[in-house]
Formats: sequence, structure tokens, C-alpha cells
Amino acid sequence: MSGLPATHPLSTGILADAPLLAAFSGASPSRRPVWFMRQAGRSLPEYRAARHGNAMLEACVTPELAAEITLQPVRRYGVDAAIFFSDIVVPMALAGVEVSLEPGVGPVFARPIETMADVEALPALDDSFDAALEPIREAVALTVERLGGTPLIGFAGAPFTLAAYMVDGRASRDHLGARRLMAAQPQVWAALAEWAAAASGRFLRAQVLAGASAVQLFDSWAGSLSEATYEQFCAPWSTAALDAVSDLPVPRVHFAAHGSHLLRPMARAGATVLGVDYRLPLDEASRLLGSKTPLQGNVDPAYLGAPWETLREHVDDVLRRGESAPGHVVNLGHGVPPDADPDVLHRIVEHVHAYG
Amino acid sequence: MSGLPATHPLSTGILADAPLLAAFSGASPSRRPVWFMRQAGRSLPEYRAARHGNAMLEACVTPELAAEITLQPVRRYGVDAAIFFSDIVVPMALAGVEVSLEPGVGPVFARPIETMADVEALPALDDSFDAALEPIREAVALTVERLGGTPLIGFAGAPFTLAAYMVDGRASRDHLGARRLMAAQPQVWAALAEWAAAASGRFLRAQVLAGASAVQLFDSWAGSLSEATYEQFCAPWSTAALDAVSDLPVPRVHFAAHGSHLLRPMARAGATVLGVDYRLPLDEASRLLGSKTPLQGNVDPAYLGAPWETLREHVDDVLRRGESAPGHVVNLGHGVPPDADPDVLHRIVEHVHAYG
Repeated sequence: MSGLPATHPLSTGILADAPLLAAFSGASPSRRPVWFMRQAGRSLPEYRAARHGNAMLEACVTPELAAEITLQPVRRYGVDAAIFFSDIVVPMALAGVEVSLEPGVGPVFARPIETMADVEALPALDDSFDAALEPIREAVALTVERLGGTPLIGFAGAPFTLAAYMVDGRASRDHLGARRLMAAQPQVWAALAEWAAAASGRFLRAQVLAGASAVQLFDSWAGSLSEATYEQFCAPWSTAALDAVSDLPVPRVHFAAHGSHLLRPMARAGATVLGVDYRLPLDEASRLLGSKTPLQGNVDPAYLGAPWETLREHVDDVLRRGESAPGHVVNLGHGVPPDADPDVLHRIVEHVHAYG
Repeated sequence: MSGLPATHPLSTGILADAPLLAAFSGASPSRRPVWFMRQAGRSLPEYRAARHGNAMLEACVTPELAAEITLQPVRRYGVDAAIFFSDIVVPMALAGVEVSLEPGVGPVFARPIETMADVEALPALDDSFDAALEPIREAVALTVERLGGTPLIGFAGAPFTLAAYMVDGRASRDHLGARRLMAAQPQVWAALAEWAAAASGRFLRAQVLAGASAVQLFDSWAGSLSEATYEQFCAPWSTAALDAVSDLPVPRVHFAAHGSHLLRPMARAGATVLGVDYRLPLDEASRLLGSKTPLQGNVDPAYLGAPWETLREHVDDVLRRGESAPGHVVNLGHGVPPDADPDVLHRIVEHVHAYG
């Protein structure tokens, strides 16, 4: 009836008391839940050991490895959620787009998109794409089997970010290539964004059906857009990606780095929970949203290296401001920096869990 | 009496009818003035010819060359202002800080700042710094001599941007190094920002006394800060830099890329005109500022490659929204991209000047 298999953690009842899901739905959790964007990754010595000799993309599509990396921060920190270890380019790579992850550079696409013919030449997202997602389903199934009562959040990059990468070919400061395409050839942009939304949406849906109990759509680059540009050229495809799971009973978190000016249109785009970056206090975010939307965030990663008293005061400020929302999940206001000290993150988890 | 030499363009009366200065002061210009951030530079073939064989930093401190490059876009486009050709690192380099400009990378500092001892080891900004600014004064004098009735805007990087570069050693996406220093060692940050404000302020003052009729303080990175962080760790030193010319009768423009959420504290920091990035419509900016502050901006550079009808509509929208401010100078909402077509910029100037 829920659209989920009987073995899904949301079907078996194993997550009935999960603080994360209570906070995401605006109910009362037994404690303030906390997890960290990019908690699985380079900041952990056990991650560096596990990755040893495996390329990033290879690690993402090797079920045993992806599951192990996803579980590491849950074991170490006792966080209230796992986030599926992946990269925004994984669905594109699985679809057959030529992309590599270059150390120190990030994604590099062999054939940047310029014309409608380029979009039309993209791989069809048909049954073979569905088959290519099998290692993802396996990794998710392995992960949730081992997670027990801790929920897994599925992960995908937002269509704007995927499409911007495909136009610029790699990371760029202002995504001028993508923004130019919108202005000069809006039909080409729309066709590309539609393809990216389908890839992203199916990637999310595969994770949920395999066992994820929430999803997070991550927009690395949308912060470079004005609200009007976001609404016209970005929001429709975020909606399409989120719609791929909107018939399933899972919270839909949406986060845009540097996107605190876009919270209202992001909520309208179909998110049920909004991630807030470190630049906007949570009580101001809540006011903008009419106090109707559960929030996630927003400890400033810049404080991770400060003396504990300074960091603790900052975390307490986030906890207090978070009370203005109908639900609050503590997180960072940006991903864990690669050189973060895991002991500091652990201390934050303990402090948040002890908070009255 | 004005504090300016009798030979200064603001003393001689040659700028009495300059549309730029009328708009900057909220008076009625004879036409809507227009210029472009980074109008002098790589997008112009005559610039590439002039620079040939000269390193960027060398060009900035060679008076004849800096003057020529500053004048090129005025000749080509008929814009209403020249902006002094320089780079944010020039005052630091002239002070004796070890910095290079690496093609494709930007500024690279040999000794990133980490401790109070590092700050204390920075060169004193004494008489020898004043002497080192002589090529700047010469370049400005040559420029204004040739500009006639077109005003020259002096240029400097804002203290936050200078200090962030000095901490991170080079450009970084979130300026995490600088933001960490603020959180962990606020006294070290304050000492560094104070040094940067003094360098930036004296650089601006030298340009004004030598003939510039306005100044623009350019903050490349402040957009990465929350409003509270901006007010505590950034604004005091922007104020200090602008104060270096606040006794002189020149408009003080302040622009922060990606900083549209900071317009109010930027106005309080001592700017008399605010530059607005492409992400916030000018009428919304004006509303935020109580319609009290002349604005500069904000044609989206992404539209420069669009069909003329699309671009013209966008420029007209900017012109209409600009009417909500007490004065409006048309500009881009970010610098001219290196691959911009000069003919398109020329067409914008003609269109703005013909606007009723």
C-alpha cells in the first residue's frame, strides 16, 4: 500500500522510533537528531583505508565498498542517519555518459553539451539504465541490512547541478556556460535539464525502493542563480526529480549550497524538508518559510577548528534557533571539510544528543 | 578646501556635466551612465596587444601601460567612466608581500598567514610604502590627463578579500581558511584585516589625490559570509578602507560579488553607492535600502551571448528597475567575461545612451 516492499525498513517497523524521521515529519523526536553532510569520506581514516587502491567512481558502484563507507560514520559517531555514499555524477556515469572524477579537480566530462544535437546524443534512460542501477540497489540493500534502527538517506545531485557540469564540462565559479545556455538557447537547456532530472529521479527512486527511508537532493550550484532564474530554469526540474519519489512515504530534503536566498522556491519545488546553508540563521529561514517546513542545518564548518567553548556556543545557538521550525535535524551548513577532526564531530554528536 | 589639488579634475570643473558623478550623487544626469566592471582587460584585442610580453603585475605598475589599458575601453565603447586598471594584489605587492599572479590560477602568496607572528612580520605601511605607490600616482595622472571629461574611478580590493587571499594563499571556494581564523583566533584575524584595510585605503587615497574622481571597493569574497559574520569580521575594515578617502569629495562605491544579502551592512560600512550583483533585481535592492542609495548594476553577463532581442529586453528590464533608486549607473552584475564580444558591449552602451 505504501508502494514499498514488505522488507523495507519503513514497512517492518524497525524505524518506528527513529528521531530523524520524527523531526523530518514535524513530530516530536526523542532527541534532536544529527548527521553531517559528507560524513562518509576523506575526513575519516577508515575511509581512506577502505578506498585504498579504488578510484572514487569504482568505489561508488562496488556494493560492498559503498555500503561499508556509508556505515563508517554511523559506527564512529552514532549519528541519527546514514547518507548513501555516492557522487553526483554516478547516475550519469551509469547511464553511459563519459565522465571522470579527477583528484583535486572533480568531475570532468569528455563532451560538454552545447547544442540540441548534443542533448539528443545523450544515452537513453531506458531499461539498460535501470539494469545499470543494480549495484546501487545492492549497495543500499547491504547498507540497510546492517544499519538496523538507523535510517538511510538516499542521495542525488539536483538537475541544475548535473546539467551545469555537463555544459561547463567541469566545476566553474559562476556556471556561466550553463547560465548562458539558459539565456541564449532555452529549449536546449530545458531538454538537457529534463534528461538530468530523469537520471537524478530514477537514481533516487532506486535507492528508496532498495531501502532508503528519505532522500536528499543536493544542489551544489543553484546558489549562483537569482530567484527569478531559479524559478524559470531550475525549479521545474528539481520538481521532476523529487516527483520520482513523491508517491512513496519518504521525506524529501532539498539543500542548495549558497542557496539561502532560494528557500521559498525550493520549498515550492516539492521538498518537504529544507537544508539551510551556514549563511542564514535557522530562525530567519523559518520565518521566511512561515514556520511550516522542517529544517536541517546549519553549523558553520569554519567553527570546527575553534576552541571547544567557541564551537559549543555556536552549536547551542543553532540548536536554539532550530526550535523555531516544526522539526529540526542538526547538520553542518556545508559538507564536512576533508581535513576536519573526527573527534570534534563526535563531540558535537554527543553534545546535541545531551541537549535538553 | 576640497582637499584635492587645484589641478584635480574635480577642481578644474572639467567634470561638471559628467553623467556618472550626477548619478552617483543622486542628481539628474543628462543620460543614464554606463560602464562595465573589468571593461579593461582580456576581452579586448587591443588589451591583449598592449599586454604582449608584460606580466600582469608588471603592467599594473608601469604607468604608461596601465594608463593605456585603462583608456582602451573608454575609446572603444564611449563608456561614462574609466576604472583604473589594476589588480587587488597590487598594493600588497607594492608593500613588499611576496605574491605572484599565476595564469589560470590567480594570486598565489608565498607565505600564507597563520599566526600573529605572521601578521607582525608583514611589511610596515610606512613612508617606503608611500614611495612605492609612485607608479600608481603617475599612471593615474597620465590617465586623467587623457580622459578629458570622463571621470576615472579608483579601484581597490576590500580588506576581507585581501586578507582571505593572504590566509588561504590563493583563491578558494568558501574561504574556509579565513573563516576558520575568524572563529578560532579573532585577534589574529583583526590584526590582519587592519593591515589589509590600511593597504587598501592608502591605495585608494593615492589614486584620488592623483586624479580619480570616485572609488570602488571591490569585495570578491564577502558573499561567502552570513550577515552577522560580515558585520563582526568584515564591515569594520571595509569602513576603515573607505574612511581613507571619506574626507575627500568623491563617491564611494562598494560591490561584493554574490553579496546581495549584504547590501544593508555594506551601506552602513560607509559606501555612498552600492554595486548590485546579477542575482538581485535593482528594485528589490532599492527597497532593501529604503530607496536612499544610488545603485550600480546589474546586467547579467550570462545574457551577453544571447540574441540581441533577448539581451535588449534584459537591459531594458535593468533600466526600468534602476529607476527605483535615487541614482542608477548601468553596469554588469559581475565582471566582463574574458571571452565577451566587445561589439555586444558597445551595442549595450549605445542602447543605454539612447534610452529615454
